[in-house]
Amino acid sequence: MSDRLDRVAALLRDRSLDAVIVSNPSNRRYLSGFTADDHAADESSGVLIVATGARLILSGATNLPWAKAEAPGFEPIAWERPWPTFVGELINDRGWRSVGFEDGTTTVADYNTLVEALTSTTLMPLGDAIDALRAVKSDDELQRIADVIGMTDDAFTRGVERLKTGITERELADHIGHVLRNLGSDGEAFPTIVASGPNAAKPHHAPGERAIKAGDPVIIDMGARLDGYNGDLTRTVWVGEIEPRLAQIYDVVFEAQQAALATVRAGITGAAVDQSVRDVCERHNLGEYILHGVGHGLGLRVHEAPSAGPKAETALVAGQVLTIEPGLYVEGWGGVRIEDVVVIEQDGCRNLTGATKNRT
Amino acid sequence: MSDRLDRVAALLRDRSLDAVIVSNPSNRRYLSGFTADDHAADESSGVLIVATGARLILSGATNLPWAKAEAPGFEPIAWERPWPTFVGELINDRGWRSVGFEDGTTTVADYNTLVEALTSTTLMPLGDAIDALRAVKSDDELQRIADVIGMTDDAFTRGVERLKTGITERELADHIGHVLRNLGSDGEAFPTIVASGPNAAKPHHAPGERAIKAGDPVIIDMGARLDGYNGDLTRTVWVGEIEPRLAQIYDVVFEAQQAALATVRAGITGAAVDQSVRDVCERHNLGEYILHGVGHGLGLRVHEAPSAGPKAETALVAGQVLTIEPGLYVEGWGGVRIEDVVVIEQDGCRNLTGATKNRT
Repeated sequence: MSDRLDRVAALLRDRSLDAVIVSNPSNRRYLSGFTADDHAADESSGVLIVATGARLILSGATNLPWAKAEAPGFEPIAWERPWPTFVGELINDRGWRSVGFEDGTTTVADYNTLVEALTSTTLMPLGDAIDALRAVKSDDELQRIADVIGMTDDAFTRGVERLKTGITERELADHIGHVLRNLGSDGEAFPTIVASGPNAAKPHHAPGERAIKAGDPVIIDMGARLDGYNGDLTRTVWVGEIEPRLAQIYDVVFEAQQAALATVRAGITGAAVDQSVRDVCERHNLGEYILHGVGHGLGLRVHEAPSAGPKAETALVAGQVLTIEPGLYVEGWGGVRIEDVVVIEQDGCRNLTGATKNRT
Repeated sequence: MSDRLDRVAALLRDRSLDAVIVSNPSNRRYLSGFTADDHAADESSGVLIVATGARLILSGATNLPWAKAEAPGFEPIAWERPWPTFVGELINDRGWRSVGFEDGTTTVADYNTLVEALTSTTLMPLGDAIDALRAVKSDDELQRIADVIGMTDDAFTRGVERLKTGITERELADHIGHVLRNLGSDGEAFPTIVASGPNAAKPHHAPGERAIKAGDPVIIDMGARLDGYNGDLTRTVWVGEIEPRLAQIYDVVFEAQQAALATVRAGITGAAVDQSVRDVCERHNLGEYILHGVGHGLGLRVHEAPSAGPKAETALVAGQVLTIEPGLYVEGWGGVRIEDVVVIEQDGCRNLTGATKNRT
């Protein structure tokens, strides 16, 4: 944590801030070790305040003993509700005049309550400055991510053995969730998606009572969570012989993924990686069936920096972690998505995903 | 849904609004049927816009096919990012001048982007006006909640059979999660808490590697989720003979819960119910070990209106659902919490929870 807090101290200096309020749950965990998530945007489990000479963790009395146990480097303080009033009065007492806050996760209501409580402090929006501290992973983090990806691969391989005609999407998703937990993960990174037949035309889908039929495209999108880090894996599978249309689309998505994996490296923009996928799909006259960018960062959050969509004009950096997940979606028929996770390196990438994707 | 949307229409009239933007995921689901949650405060899965003559559901292209399938009463529109700019331009095009927004869940960054895009529209904060529509449950909702509570009871009874000395908190929590899924739920309402020995002094706790010993207080706090509705159940259990200190504290918490159950009814404030618990604990000189209010509303969210803490000065209403969960927490030793879920009725309450809590 010490190196992480040094980078916050540098941020304070660079922006001439007396303190920052960290309310984003992933950033709170990254800097303090407190593992709680927020139930919802309007239900904070706690905030950190980092200032020169002060590292505070504030929460309601219900969460404070937990926070205290997990974040020994922070002084625990129980807040009274409404918490922004309490935090505002604390800032007044400490005499901090210029305080950064996370406008990307602070609600308008909490912000207004905080401003009302402050007597002579200016709040400065931090944008994604704290999130950005998490984008390049340490060696220790990369090992944790490799571990959770390996566990996800393993769960896919075991879980997909249950695939057969007649099993419902939901039964298969539940089984995969069970395997994920049995392998020692903390559970699912996100609710497992099993989307079959026409449902596979939906990139996101809640698995339902549809029974899987021979020849259906079946998209499985899943991830373990371990020590807060998330896995993310998508494979498209089928029962029996592959149908010609599925084979054709599968091969294009596979080729598009190969193109992206060959393109991605430090110094390239996410948009360029995304374009490599579009080029392949358009060459096969399937460009119209693209619904999303090629990938997203992965770590303590399932979706985090960097992004790799058409508007991602920032250069990728070595040590970032990115999903490479081209997909094609044909309404009424179904879809194909194939997703691996890579670490960006100076001259290319290291693919952390090992689950098989060869269709023969 | 139609009755729910009628109540939104009445809100539009009462507040002279042309439209409302619904961004809170629970409210979005309640009004449209779209089951997606938000990944995080800064990662919306979609918003509704309800106006006279318009019911729109907007989301990114990745989520739109899912939204379209689940929310047939709404016109689906794919947004371009940043979404608040897209929504702002849509509002300009439609000519809506006075538009309500959920300040309790809209982030400062999204709000500022939205304001920047608007040319001649005033945004009006809705506070919890949309959440409030969910507070009193319909008969259909009460049946769903009774079902998920029954399933939670059942999972507790089966899960706790695994309790024995040497099992770790985490093993027991994982087992309970597995039972919850096997009974046909959509999974856990929240990560199951198993807090043993001194860990039971923490109202919220992440189950860890601690092995349970004879005589430990073991707090189990768990809930199934089914069709979006959440169960919530806490029991405090032990292995072997009950220790005298645990017996004493258990009996006080039990008595406090009985007092709250006898007090709660329509017309009474949440604060009065909370006070009934404090009175019992203070009579036994244990008031200092109270860390939280007696309960919270329950429905599509685990924590929702009404609240029943010391500051809850609003009268309860028949048809609301409330947890009754007094607890006492002694740092270094452990704690006891007992939680049931009740429906507020005109002359009292109906207890939905059936899991045993008699200590003999």
